[in-house]
Amino acid sequence: MRVYMDENFLLETKTAETLYHDYAAELPIIDYHTHFNPAQIMKNAQFENITHAWLHGDHYKWRLMRIMGVEERYITGDATDWEKFQKFAEILPKCIGNPVHHWAHMELQRYFDCNLVVNAENAQEIWDATEEMLKQDSLRARPILKKMNVKMIGTTDDVTSDLQWHKALKEDKTNSVIVTPTFRPDKIVNIEIEGFAKQVEDLAKQSGKSIDSVDTLKAALLERIQFFDEMGCKASDHGMEYLVFRKADAKTVEEVFQKGLSGVTLSEEEIEIFKTDLMLFFGKEFAKRRWVMQLHYCAMRNINQRMFRLLGPGSGYDTINPRECARALAEFLSALEEEQALPRTIVFSLNPNDNPIIDSIVGSFQEGGVVGKVQHGMAWWYNDAKVGIENHLLSFAELGALGSFIGMLTDSVSFFSFPRHEYFRRILCNVIGKMVECGEYPNDIKALGEIVQDISCHNAARYFGIDLL
Amino acid sequence: MRVYMDENFLLETKTAETLYHDYAAELPIIDYHTHFNPAQIMKNAQFENITHAWLHGDHYKWRLMRIMGVEERYITGDATDWEKFQKFAEILPKCIGNPVHHWAHMELQRYFDCNLVVNAENAQEIWDATEEMLKQDSLRARPILKKMNVKMIGTTDDVTSDLQWHKALKEDKTNSVIVTPTFRPDKIVNIEIEGFAKQVEDLAKQSGKSIDSVDTLKAALLERIQFFDEMGCKASDHGMEYLVFRKADAKTVEEVFQKGLSGVTLSEEEIEIFKTDLMLFFGKEFAKRRWVMQLHYCAMRNINQRMFRLLGPGSGYDTINPRECARALAEFLSALEEEQALPRTIVFSLNPNDNPIIDSIVGSFQEGGVVGKVQHGMAWWYNDAKVGIENHLLSFAELGALGSFIGMLTDSVSFFSFPRHEYFRRILCNVIGKMVECGEYPNDIKALGEIVQDISCHNAARYFGIDLL
Amino acid sequence: MRVYMDENFLLETKTAETLYHDYAAELPIIDYHTHFNPAQIMKNAQFENITHAWLHGDHYKWRLMRIMGVEERYITGDATDWEKFQKFAEILPKCIGNPVHHWAHMELQRYFDCNLVVNAENAQEIWDATEEMLKQDSLRARPILKKMNVKMIGTTDDVTSDLQWHKALKEDKTNSVIVTPTFRPDKIVNIEIEGFAKQVEDLAKQSGKSIDSVDTLKAALLERIQFFDEMGCKASDHGMEYLVFRKADAKTVEEVFQKGLSGVTLSEEEIEIFKTDLMLFFGKEFAKRRWVMQLHYCAMRNINQRMFRLLGPGSGYDTINPRECARALAEFLSALEEEQALPRTIVFSLNPNDNPIIDSIVGSFQEGGVVGKVQHGMAWWYNDAKVGIENHLLSFAELGALGSFIGMLTDSVSFFSFPRHEYFRRILCNVIGKMVECGEYPNDIKALGEIVQDISCHNAARYFGIDLL
Repeated sequence: MRVYMDENFLLETKTAETLYHDYAAELPIIDYHTHFNPAQIMKNAQFENITHAWLHGDHYKWRLMRIMGVEERYITGDATDWEKFQKFAEILPKCIGNPVHHWAHMELQRYFDCNLVVNAENAQEIWDATEEMLKQDSLRARPILKKMNVKMIGTTDDVTSDLQWHKALKEDKTNSVIVTPTFRPDKIVNIEIEGFAKQVEDLAKQSGKSIDSVDTLKAALLERIQFFDEMGCKASDHGMEYLVFRKADAKTVEEVFQKGLSGVTLSEEEIEIFKTDLMLFFGKEFAKRRWVMQLHYCAMRNINQRMFRLLGPGSGYDTINPRECARALAEFLSALEEEQALPRTIVFSLNPNDNPIIDSIVGSFQEGGVVGKVQHGMAWWYNDAKVGIENHLLSFAELGALGSFIGMLTDSVSFFSFPRHEYFRRILCNVIGKMVECGEYPNDIKALGEIVQDISCHNAARYFGIDLL
Repeated sequence: MRVYMDENFLLETKTAETLYHDYAAELPIIDYHTHFNPAQIMKNAQFENITHAWLHGDHYKWRLMRIMGVEERYITGDATDWEKFQKFAEILPKCIGNPVHHWAHMELQRYFDCNLVVNAENAQEIWDATEEMLKQDSLRARPILKKMNVKMIGTTDDVTSDLQWHKALKEDKTNSVIVTPTFRPDKIVNIEIEGFAKQVEDLAKQSGKSIDSVDTLKAALLERIQFFDEMGCKASDHGMEYLVFRKADAKTVEEVFQKGLSGVTLSEEEIEIFKTDLMLFFGKEFAKRRWVMQLHYCAMRNINQRMFRLLGPGSGYDTINPRECARALAEFLSALEEEQALPRTIVFSLNPNDNPIIDSIVGSFQEGGVVGKVQHGMAWWYNDAKVGIENHLLSFAELGALGSFIGMLTDSVSFFSFPRHEYFRRILCNVIGKMVECGEYPNDIKALGEIVQDISCHNAARYFGIDLL
Repeated sequence: MRVYMDENFLLETKTAETLYHDYAAELPIIDYHTHFNPAQIMKNAQFENITHAWLHGDHYKWRLMRIMGVEERYITGDATDWEKFQKFAEILPKCIGNPVHHWAHMELQRYFDCNLVVNAENAQEIWDATEEMLKQDSLRARPILKKMNVKMIGTTDDVTSDLQWHKALKEDKTNSVIVTPTFRPDKIVNIEIEGFAKQVEDLAKQSGKSIDSVDTLKAALLERIQFFDEMGCKASDHGMEYLVFRKADAKTVEEVFQKGLSGVTLSEEEIEIFKTDLMLFFGKEFAKRRWVMQLHYCAMRNINQRMFRLLGPGSGYDTINPRECARALAEFLSALEEEQALPRTIVFSLNPNDNPIIDSIVGSFQEGGVVGKVQHGMAWWYNDAKVGIENHLLSFAELGALGSFIGMLTDSVSFFSFPRHEYFRRILCNVIGKMVECGEYPNDIKALGEIVQDISCHNAARYFGIDLL
């Protein structure tokens, strides 16, 4: 029997222990995809109590509380912070095997030096201990980043953002973390969503360019891309219910755009035509600037309409959408490749059944001199649990070259989620350690250490062009 | 090397052994979904020989015999019972890793105290020993239920059933098992099937209400629901090739119904409109009565048309239909939730690729005060093997809260299938035991025992409102 | 820690060791599906160096090199053979967990008695040692077949092939391997592909029958089937993007055929009508001759259009196409079964998500006296890695009867790929060994040995009607 979450947590072999402790543990964190608020870094935010740190905005935890029958008032409602934490502590023991259970305990240990188990009995003690510690400067945003050895954070930023906090951080000599904006133009791509004309208007205002055609739309987007680029942007991000690829001539695209602006309901075909045109435009512009294009798809949003009206988006009602879009992905990448204008691209599907399909497709779009140019992104969201990560790694390895993987990201809003990198590295070392100890790979610690370091940190640094020194 | 199927069968760790033997083994069985014939309970049925007990009506075993090249006459044909058993015994050793192999040996041990391996050599000895024992009263239906510690059985009952045996059982003071009918209105929902008008006519007759419109149809169904409710019904069951959600106004639904009655061929769209309307009606009525709605889908029936004509339905020619219906599921649940009329719902897909999709969807439809109100049902049919069950449990755990799971059901017609509950409990304890011994969950036997007991029995009792005392 | 790739490679239990070494290792190889060039057997081909043996035509390895950022000139370009091998040796260590890593080292050991690890440091030494050995007669084609204990090779042959090398091999008394042609009529089935009329013309020429209608087309195909049959053909092979089943009357089929001949673009429906008609025709003819029909589907070909233009087909740009075709498969098999004209059929999908779906469907089309008449073919292409094979075996076992499986094939062009049979047998023995040592199957070495021998060799021999003596 292994001790719960000791120093060898998740490391089932000696080789895994060596790989983790001697090679992976000390490496800096490249968190290239997050939803951090850069103002919190700039202002060196402080967190009032464990409920602020853990439960505010964390729909992972909200969902577990709801499933265990907790009343909504203790989740997003008017209960006190203590009551909310208490309810969470009560139900967490039932969530055996859920990554939130692991993360919560890793976070307690790493941030608060607290080895208590989260449950009803310990709730008060944990509340008190963490409340005390959160008053100290060492648990403010910047010391956390330092303590966690975070080298780079990619935020996610609306196309019309003024990036004021990124600018401020760049100019702040006391800031040692690279905080790069990520260009997210979804609201301009999603022509079918109510209020599209308003979004275009905002874009016109922010870019200082009037927009009355696809060409002027692209000119405005280009201004934004330029601006993001100047502010250090290294990547775009695109969230889509499903991937599209439907080419049409410029005249048709223009017609669709005008219809969209005027608020006419568009057919699925028209929507796909517009999106395809914009995505191809983006791809080419990103390739020119050595940006990384991130494609996130197969999420079905806000499926509980009643709760969506009550709580708005991002409240825990988004799910996996198993819509199949292999051909669209292949055709989209091929169209950019045709013009030798395919940027580095990371492909994330929320549907784990897509693992082998994506792994087979991305291997078909590579470039000499770039390791893993188009690659299958980290197990995303519902899949970033132990088995989900293992399945992702094994599929990546069996259908591709695992050594090319750029590894983990948190996709998180929280300064308390960095131990998920540790979680990933431990699972990675464990998967590799098992292969070695089963005699399936030579026991060559140098080669193994290099693979582990590449996937834990170095590949991502190279891929995003981050200097680690 | 572990001994074959000894007392620690499937329990690979000490923790698993403790959890199973000290917490799970003695709990009563809540078999909330079966296809038992209640008359067999009422009449305290006796089983002539092992072929009657095992091979009559068991398409799991028939399929294995066919795959191994056994002639149909030894399966469903005119061979003698002995010959049929002999053929089954001959081919079973080739079915390594199939759950039927495990179940058969568990059943031999638990019912017949026989530790022989089923194979050609032992066939005669097993036949003789079991034949002898089946003559005794202790292997009649009621003593079996008692011996197996069965507390509740949910049968599956046609919407027009008179439930005479349920009534008789309720009135029988000597009966100690709760036998509840389950409301199955498929033949009224499936408007596209030949003979629909005849089914409606039967419903009219049985309900005592004439039916000439959707409204009168619903009135008749309501009478049936009332009657089932009075007879102790706690759940409905719906078998569908795929889930639908296509709303239309009352006038359109009425038109479709009239066309269906008159035998006109309906479009897919029309069929979906009618089904959606009825399913929404059912959902609301079930919610009012605290019934549980069971949705079973992704089965493709009778795919071998030649054998279907020879042997009829349920003969081993039903398979997994991978048709994707995530959006329909989400929209259906959301529509009921909108009206705060969503009943407790269990979602079963025959396609194991749906595991993560269902787990993400159900977590979006919960209610304060109810544990796991909408939940992913037990690995069904083709999936109730060891790996299938493990995958189901791990997906449930990683995407939801495993502690909310209501657990096992047999879906069986046979009084000899109760050891499948033991099979499930052992696999559950083994999965949990591994997590603990790998240091992934605290070694807190009280918390663990509670989870195991909840999933093995208590959650189902609470979910269906069964008093265990 | 186990030693890397020693004699017990992949055998994690004593039972697995016994099963492999005492039962599986010495059995002959039935490689019923390959893309071997029979001329190389006839001419007893010699291989110039390790690059010829390993890298020529091997798109598995090309993909890995591309993913690791190797320039195309070192893959398919004008670099020297040594440079190509050197690049491959450099990147292979990064491919941890990929089957190519295992295969390469098994091949070095089995063919070249070389235990070196393939990496940058050892590249020169491996190059030199293998170059020397490849000059010897013992590493020419025929001695390899003898050394590897190959009993039968099924090639893949175009419908218009003259099968001259098969004829020559049959007449060559010094040849001891059964080399059977496999009938592959894809170019006649794929009516939608440019140049269809030319293909029909070629068929007419080769068959000596003029073709101007579906009837005369079938007459020509029948001539070919007869000829293949005379040349020892035992199987057909059909590669399809997705399976179709759309029946139409003869007149409609004729119209579609005439349109196809005249080069008119056909609708998807028309294409499916033509393909269905031909496939039903084929099925019936194969059944008459006891041929095995192999269906390979769910491959998406040449998805990188730019590279396709540069390098042509089969260059590493084919991927998994997750298009769902369960119903088409079921209906196609049922239609043949209706006429009692269903041949032995092996179903291969490139999409591993299809595993349980195929396993449930094939079990519905069986025949007394034939073991596993319709069966799920070996984990194919992207899936023939360790986890891919294990998942395939477990799905086969849990949804069917593992003992009916006909096992491994290489699908390869290379005389150096036979150790993949060893790879498969080791994985099979390991899966079974684990079941036994975990107490999930009786420790009956006779029954186990028989299962292992059946799956490794005997079932395939019986299925294809090969006499092993």
